[in-house]
Amino acid sequence: MSSLGEFELIAQYFARAHRPLPTQVVLGIGDDCALLQPTPGMQWAISSDMLVSGRHFFADVDPRTLGHKALAVNLSDLAACGATPVGFTLALSLPEANAQWLHDFSQGLFALADAHSCPLVGGDTTQGPLNICITVFGEIPPGQALLRSGAQAGDDIWVSGTLGDAALALHCLWGRDALPAPDLARARQRLEQPSPRVALGQALRGVAHAAADVSDGLLGDLGHILKASKVGADLMAADAMNLIASSAYSTSANGLFDPQSNRTAAVLEYVLSGGDDYELVFTAAPAEREAIAAAGTKSNTRVTRVGTVTSAPGVRVLWPDGSQALGKWASFDHFKAVATPGS
Amino acid sequence: MSSLGEFELIAQYFARAHRPLPTQVVLGIGDDCALLQPTPGMQWAISSDMLVSGRHFFADVDPRTLGHKALAVNLSDLAACGATPVGFTLALSLPEANAQWLHDFSQGLFALADAHSCPLVGGDTTQGPLNICITVFGEIPPGQALLRSGAQAGDDIWVSGTLGDAALALHCLWGRDALPAPDLARARQRLEQPSPRVALGQALRGVAHAAADVSDGLLGDLGHILKASKVGADLMAADAMNLIASSAYSTSANGLFDPQSNRTAAVLEYVLSGGDDYELVFTAAPAEREAIAAAGTKSNTRVTRVGTVTSAPGVRVLWPDGSQALGKWASFDHFKAVATPGS
Repeated sequence: MSSLGEFELIAQYFARAHRPLPTQVVLGIGDDCALLQPTPGMQWAISSDMLVSGRHFFADVDPRTLGHKALAVNLSDLAACGATPVGFTLALSLPEANAQWLHDFSQGLFALADAHSCPLVGGDTTQGPLNICITVFGEIPPGQALLRSGAQAGDDIWVSGTLGDAALALHCLWGRDALPAPDLARARQRLEQPSPRVALGQALRGVAHAAADVSDGLLGDLGHILKASKVGADLMAADAMNLIASSAYSTSANGLFDPQSNRTAAVLEYVLSGGDDYELVFTAAPAEREAIAAAGTKSNTRVTRVGTVTSAPGVRVLWPDGSQALGKWASFDHFKAVATPGS
Repeated sequence: MSSLGEFELIAQYFARAHRPLPTQVVLGIGDDCALLQPTPGMQWAISSDMLVSGRHFFADVDPRTLGHKALAVNLSDLAACGATPVGFTLALSLPEANAQWLHDFSQGLFALADAHSCPLVGGDTTQGPLNICITVFGEIPPGQALLRSGAQAGDDIWVSGTLGDAALALHCLWGRDALPAPDLARARQRLEQPSPRVALGQALRGVAHAAADVSDGLLGDLGHILKASKVGADLMAADAMNLIASSAYSTSANGLFDPQSNRTAAVLEYVLSGGDDYELVFTAAPAEREAIAAAGTKSNTRVTRVGTVTSAPGVRVLWPDGSQALGKWASFDHFKAVATPGS
C-alpha cells in the first residue's frame, strides 16, 4: 500500500503525456473538464457502465483483465450503435492505492484503448470499495445509429462471434460445471476479456435495422430489440446451439444434438441466457444477407443467422421439426444475479 | 426493499417521458447509447466525478440532498470551464432497491438538473456498495474555455460566494466544533447542497484568465491554477477571512480579527483548506475589475478579490501589515481524508 494522494495517483498511472491524441481531443486529463471538438456534422453516442466487485467480476480477478473488461463493456455499447470511439472518462474507487494493481489495471485498460484509438480524457479517483465507472464517447453520422427500435417483421436475426462461453466459464468458476483446463482458460478469456465488436458495428451502418450488445443474455438483449420494435421472434434452436465455442459443448465436436438430453438443455441455457459475451445481436432484411456477410468479412467477425423477426409478439425457440424448445429462460440481470459462488 | 430488477428501476425512477429535451438530445435513456447532436462549431466540455459513501457523504445523508450534490459537483466542473450544461449520465451502485430512497434521490437530482436545463441522457444501475458516478457534458465556443493554465503575474485573484462553511459544518458533524442549530443548518446546507456557479462561469468567458472550482480547499485548488500557470500568489488574509458566511465566525459579526487568536486560526483553516464549497476561484487582469463585478451582478453571485498572482512561485498569506500568516495548510484530498468521525 502506498501513501500516494489522489492527484499523484492519476498523474502516475493514468496521465500519458506525449501520445498522439485524436483530432477531436483539444484538452485531455488535468483540468476541471476535458475539451473535445466534435467532427462537424457528426452525432455523439454516449454510454456509461459501472462495474462492481463481487457482481461484475471476482474480487481476485487479474487487474489487467479487469482494466480490459471495464472499457470493453463500454466500447460494446458504442459497437451496438455503430459508433466510432472518440474517448472515455474513468472514475475509479479503490480500497487502497496499490501500485502494482494500478500498473496492471492501467496496462489492460490502455491496451484496449489504444487498439480502438480511444484515449482516456478525464476522470476521478477516490478511496472506497472497488468500483469502476467508465463513460465512453463515439461519433456517428446523423440517422445512421443502429437503434433497438428498428427491427421489422421478416428481418433475419443475426449474432456475431460465439455465445455462451462466458456463462460456461462462470459456472465452472462457481463449481457448477467443469471443463478441462485449456478449455476453461479459453472460456474464461471470453468472460474476462470480451472483444467489443466495434468494427462490425460500424460495418453494419446502413445495413442492419436494429442492434444491441449481448451483455445480459441473448434472449434478454434480443428482447430489448423486440420490445422497442414491437415485434416478436422465432429463434432456431439448432443454429443457436452452434454459437457456443467450447469443444465440450459444440455440436460439431459432439455429434448431433438430442433435444431431450441434459447436454442440449445446458448448451441452450448458456447460449440463450448466459450474459457477459458482449457480442452483437442485430436484425436486417433478408435481401441484405450478402451485405451482412461482407460486413463480417470486413470486420473479421463471424456472423451467424439464428432466427426471424415476427409480427407476433413473444419469442419462440424452435427445433428443425417445428417443435418448441423449453422457453422460460430469464435474462441475466446484474441487480438479481451475483458473480460470486453460492448465490 | 423491493424486488424490482435493474431495468424496471431505471424505467420507474429515472426515465422521465414527455419532458422537453434540449435540441442537442436526439435520443435519451433506453438504448445502448444516448445520441446527442452537438451545436455546430461548439466544443464539448466533459467531466466525471464519483461519490462514495463514508467519504464524500455520510451514509445516513438525506438522499434528496445526495442527489443534488452528486450532480452539483459535476456542474461545478462545467462552471469552472465556463461551459453551458447539455446533459449527464448517471451510474448508480445501490445496496438495495429501496423505493423511497430512489424517489428522494431522483427528486433532488432532477430538481437541480431542471434548474440548469441539463437532462439525464443515460446511465447504469447495479447492486453494490453505494456509489454515484455522474459524467456531465457542456458546450463552449472554441478558445473560450477557462483553463487552469491561463493565470498571469499581476492578475487579481477572485473567489465567488462564500468559503469555509462546508468545512465548518463537517467539523460540527464530527463533533470538533459547535454552532447554534440554525447556524449549523445553514452551514450544513453549504456542505450538502452546494450551488454550482454555472451562470458565473459563463459570464466570465473572455474576462477571466484562469479558473478552477473549490472542491479540495482554496489553497489546493488555487494551487492547481498556479502550478499549471507556473506562477505564485499573495493572498490577503483579512479578505480571505471575510469569505466565511457563518455569523459565529464572520469578522463583521465579531469585530476585528486578531492574528494571534484561535478564532482567527480556525477561520483561516476553514476558508483556506476547507473543501466542498464548490465556489469558483479565478484570476483576471486588474483592468477587468468592473467586468468581473458585472459578471457577478449578471449571475447574481458575490465575487470577492482576495489576492494577486505573482511571478514568484509559492503562496504567501499576508496580514495587512505585510506579516505572513502561518502557511502550512494542506489541501483537502479525498484519498487521504474521510468524511466520517474519528479518522
